[in-house]
Amino acid sequence: MHELRKDILLGRWVEVLSESLAPSDYKLPPENTPEEESCILCPGREHELPPEISSIRRPGGGGWWVRAIPSFKPMFQIEGDLGRRGVGIYDRMNNIGANEILIESPEHVTRPEDMGLDQMVRVIKLYRDRIADLEKDSRLRYVLIYKDSGKSAGGVWSHPVSLLMATPVIPKTVKDELDNAKQYFAYKERCVFCDIINEELRVGDRVILESKHFVAFCPYAAQFPFEVWIIPKRHSCAFHEIVPDEVEDMGYILMSVLKKLRKIFGNPPFNYFIHTAPNMVPRRNHWHTLGEDYHWHLEIMPRLITTSGFEWGSGFYILPTSPEDAAKYLREVG
Amino acid sequence: MHELRKDILLGRWVEVLSESLAPSDYKLPPENTPEEESCILCPGREHELPPEISSIRRPGGGGWWVRAIPSFKPMFQIEGDLGRRGVGIYDRMNNIGANEILIESPEHVTRPEDMGLDQMVRVIKLYRDRIADLEKDSRLRYVLIYKDSGKSAGGVWSHPVSLLMATPVIPKTVKDELDNAKQYFAYKERCVFCDIINEELRVGDRVILESKHFVAFCPYAAQFPFEVWIIPKRHSCAFHEIVPDEVEDMGYILMSVLKKLRKIFGNPPFNYFIHTAPNMVPRRNHWHTLGEDYHWHLEIMPRLITTSGFEWGSGFYILPTSPEDAAKYLREVG
Repeated sequence: MHELRKDILLGRWVEVLSESLAPSDYKLPPENTPEEESCILCPGREHELPPEISSIRRPGGGGWWVRAIPSFKPMFQIEGDLGRRGVGIYDRMNNIGANEILIESPEHVTRPEDMGLDQMVRVIKLYRDRIADLEKDSRLRYVLIYKDSGKSAGGVWSHPVSLLMATPVIPKTVKDELDNAKQYFAYKERCVFCDIINEELRVGDRVILESKHFVAFCPYAAQFPFEVWIIPKRHSCAFHEIVPDEVEDMGYILMSVLKKLRKIFGNPPFNYFIHTAPNMVPRRNHWHTLGEDYHWHLEIMPRLITTSGFEWGSGFYILPTSPEDAAKYLREVG
Repeated sequence: MHELRKDILLGRWVEVLSESLAPSDYKLPPENTPEEESCILCPGREHELPPEISSIRRPGGGGWWVRAIPSFKPMFQIEGDLGRRGVGIYDRMNNIGANEILIESPEHVTRPEDMGLDQMVRVIKLYRDRIADLEKDSRLRYVLIYKDSGKSAGGVWSHPVSLLMATPVIPKTVKDELDNAKQYFAYKERCVFCDIINEELRVGDRVILESKHFVAFCPYAAQFPFEVWIIPKRHSCAFHEIVPDEVEDMGYILMSVLKKLRKIFGNPPFNYFIHTAPNMVPRRNHWHTLGEDYHWHLEIMPRLITTSGFEWGSGFYILPTSPEDAAKYLREVG
């Protein structure tokens, strides 16, 4: 019998099929091989790009390791006021925010799991610095950092990049997660994410990897098969308050999980994103609560299946591989 | 400047880009041509299928026009109890419900917009009858009828079919819509959907077609470009309370919109689904409110773009074509 499970964070139900599909049962689109030649994001063509926002550079003026630049066709713009207003019965506002490309490496042909721990640490530091910087802008309510790997995951760059969108509203999925975490806290007086970590470590069958500071696991009521969450053991609502020892450990665990996914699926299209607390400035008033009831984490979503009218019409998802089986495949692969 | 718009029903924000993409700017996957030969859903192979649940038949024993059969690999099963229980900190339940294939025509090679109004009327009557029947089961909370057209929209059958899923919970997207409609009603003492119809007809620039009983329009804060809603002018929370005159009119307007989409995009992958009130039996206690504050409708979602980590991580959507421009293209195409 298939099983229905409730996502404790979004209040959404998902169905876990009783006979799990094996990794080889998933039909993946052809691999999106990066071209070898120099692209506009490669070193040497910086003058053709919008001015750099931030970077981490080699010592002694030897060029950049990672850098943030504005998007070429930004979805959000930094200048202007919010302009919230009504239009008939509807609401609108200006697209104030930021949209940046976070270039993960000077090398054109590399992948997060291959770039080496030192480089991955720089990528995570760039994530941290960009969020810390944008948080100062009181018009912005949220900063989402995400990665699109592969065309069918929405990837448009062959050069390794992550992307950043800062928005003047808290996006709906984040808002739902915050609201449910808040309700849980009001009832239990404990962080729901801390409870999830405890529960996952207690049961163990959805855990893929545990390191000093992090746990990687397949969530109980995942949205997609082989979805993996990476979550810090230390309670912290804000990703950019990550400490250096955790940065290194996060680099290690993220690379390990991506290596495992690649070993199982070849070169699967995937997205990942960081869910962190909304910006500091507008939340000062309820800082104590929010600090206690939210817990940042990273979600990795392999794009192995096609969504249908059922998912779009219902927000109900079907998992052809159970989180327990997915975790087992991921644990066991070398 | 791009514009942010709030979806009044889901509380979600979307961004509408200032320079709309034209239909020809969308890169569509190759057409999924149905095979010409007989398939298992074609007449003559009924004995190879699970027993029929319901049908509308030609007079005088001449075979079926439309029929409902159980899914071959059902996601939900009709036998058993709900079995709601906890597992550690989490919730689970049994997959009680129904999963049916609604065969839209005995003809293998036809499409909803080509099957003729009489046949489309039978399809809509089958939708209505299946919802009315399943509503009697007090374990079921919701019945979703949807269609997947084209492989990249999740379509698996070359024979023209719609699909039905009856679930023992109200799915999240429907719940969100109900909750927001209820809040709006509490504040305004008016149905938000009735207000949307009035507003759309008043402004006119997002309206595609208006018939005696229905309006087809591109929603102000759509999730996807060229998304179209078809909504009855008469306030009614439950699709299956549709009256015969409305059935015919709905058939006409649905076929017209699908024809327009095909004229513009060739053979675009799309989903559509009906959003109707949750099942009657469990809602009797708050029948008056729910009857007043919800309003059934059909949503058509062409699958023209790929979702990225931004959409999955945020629930925030970007519309490369404004609803006003999409409506104009759809209005003007013959």
